[in-house]
Amino acid sequence: MPINTGTVLVVGGAGYIGSHMVLMLKRAGFTPIVLDNLSRGHREALSGAKLIAGEMADRDLLAHLFTTHSFSAVLHFASYIEVAESMKNPAKYYQNNVAATLTLLDLMMEHQVRHFIFSSTAAVYGEPHYTPLDELHPLHPVNPYGRSKRMVEEIVMDYARCGHLHYAILRYFNAAGADPEGRLAERHHPESHLIPLVLQAAAGERDAIIVYGNDYATPDGTCIRDYVHVTDLCDAHLLSLQRLLEGGESLLCNLGTGRGYSVQQVIDAARLVTGCRIPTVHGDRRPGDPAILVANASRAMQELHWQPRYSTLETLITHAWQAMRVTA
Amino acid sequence: MPINTGTVLVVGGAGYIGSHMVLMLKRAGFTPIVLDNLSRGHREALSGAKLIAGEMADRDLLAHLFTTHSFSAVLHFASYIEVAESMKNPAKYYQNNVAATLTLLDLMMEHQVRHFIFSSTAAVYGEPHYTPLDELHPLHPVNPYGRSKRMVEEIVMDYARCGHLHYAILRYFNAAGADPEGRLAERHHPESHLIPLVLQAAAGERDAIIVYGNDYATPDGTCIRDYVHVTDLCDAHLLSLQRLLEGGESLLCNLGTGRGYSVQQVIDAARLVTGCRIPTVHGDRRPGDPAILVANASRAMQELHWQPRYSTLETLITHAWQAMRVTA
Repeated sequence: MPINTGTVLVVGGAGYIGSHMVLMLKRAGFTPIVLDNLSRGHREALSGAKLIAGEMADRDLLAHLFTTHSFSAVLHFASYIEVAESMKNPAKYYQNNVAATLTLLDLMMEHQVRHFIFSSTAAVYGEPHYTPLDELHPLHPVNPYGRSKRMVEEIVMDYARCGHLHYAILRYFNAAGADPEGRLAERHHPESHLIPLVLQAAAGERDAIIVYGNDYATPDGTCIRDYVHVTDLCDAHLLSLQRLLEGGESLLCNLGTGRGYSVQQVIDAARLVTGCRIPTVHGDRRPGDPAILVANASRAMQELHWQPRYSTLETLITHAWQAMRVTA
Repeated sequence: MPINTGTVLVVGGAGYIGSHMVLMLKRAGFTPIVLDNLSRGHREALSGAKLIAGEMADRDLLAHLFTTHSFSAVLHFASYIEVAESMKNPAKYYQNNVAATLTLLDLMMEHQVRHFIFSSTAAVYGEPHYTPLDELHPLHPVNPYGRSKRMVEEIVMDYARCGHLHYAILRYFNAAGADPEGRLAERHHPESHLIPLVLQAAAGERDAIIVYGNDYATPDGTCIRDYVHVTDLCDAHLLSLQRLLEGGESLLCNLGTGRGYSVQQVIDAARLVTGCRIPTVHGDRRPGDPAILVANASRAMQELHWQPRYSTLETLITHAWQAMRVTA
């Protein structure tokens, strides 16, 4: 039987994926406590969970949090995720994504909190040597964002190796979609995710969608990505949390579907779902954008008995569209 | 003409290599200011340089330091360096070697201090794929110590890529020896370096020297390392500092001699130099100890016009023996 009680700390719980996780944790019987600096997150996305507004790097605040609560686990969604920004301002990425995470881990160690679920990314792989990518693919991240994530992975695994931590490191491919019941939106500031950008173009909120590169070695020339529904990601987190709380082994795995869609396919599907015109403009390739990025997610499926439920293109876009219109 | 004036911050300047560097900087006309927490360093090793006793992680202390001094460069010798300890207590290594270095870099950025010389290590390479090792060898460090150093290298290079920093990253092979004029000792607590251990055995301060593995694929079965004299290391730092201050490009290079000596050769040479009995005991191989670790140091020789002056086995041991007896 899953142990679905206890208080868990959700760092970044007001953000896109974190807020969906808070919703799921509550429904599953947990008491999520959210720490979020609200730089990207939204207070109204908390579904009634307790919010501590502050910085993960604030050691005194963390000390107070860990002293006043007894956490059975920590889920960490509080990384900065914008590749271009990380290349312009690496200090921000290393300070927040690495140094502040070390502070969080320090407090976990001091308070004997041993279960840690970390949002990692396919960006740790860098340019794919083969596709689909399994977890044994070499790690050569090509920007500070990806390097900051790989550093935390290494640090977490070193803590675990000497018995200080049990972890689930979950390497997301392209997170997309929104709560199937329309309770939460997909929002990023600035918006950098393809499906919301496409839907903003459909809604007339932006003039056109820029397609970066149409001469890739793919069937229609546009980049192929593996889109995974945010609720499916949260399912995998919940399964990971239950596994750790039941004494299961640490786990590192990809979260994707194994199936890729091209930028052009996303746009075409969005036209069908929305019934709107979606103007497109051709742009240059962006440096560091591989042609194809698709997960081999069989480890997550085997180890966690995880199965994506909502990660078809039509469902992803339908949910994102519905959430955008409900919360617009 | 070299620009040998100006105030430089030497973090870890009371330690083994840092204190030799302070001596050389003073002689070259610089004003070194030392920040050292004295956890490993020694107050009496400062050669009259100003000491600020405190932590590199102490942001307020650093802010005060950078506000009250105008540093032309920062030299960073303040990493923890014990492999075995890093495997038992990785948190200590990631907190000090990575997070505290990020704090130092932050203050450098805030105060527009753009020149940074970082003590890295051959441990970033991990198990050698070929020998001698050049700088293009893949980086697969096999312990938290080596990983923490590689992380800082990556962070520094990312800061430099966006124009925030000019660096010299110097990957030491086996630092050894002591000031040729006997003004400073080689001291480590706990002692983990081969030559001091051998000399302590020669001096009767320890019963015997343990030879870890005598069945390696080397001529006499013991491990081969590339020993480089601490004063030669300091020469390379001074050349790097002058290069950066003259507007030269950032540089990453190995510091070694290109010539290796086996553990057995070190012991034999120490017997000759000291005229003492040196009892040996055979121990098991230590995990992560490669058979041969020798630098291809041609990049340092070409780019810095660096040439080791003191890194012969006899000189290394003679200087270490002399320093040990003078300061005993």
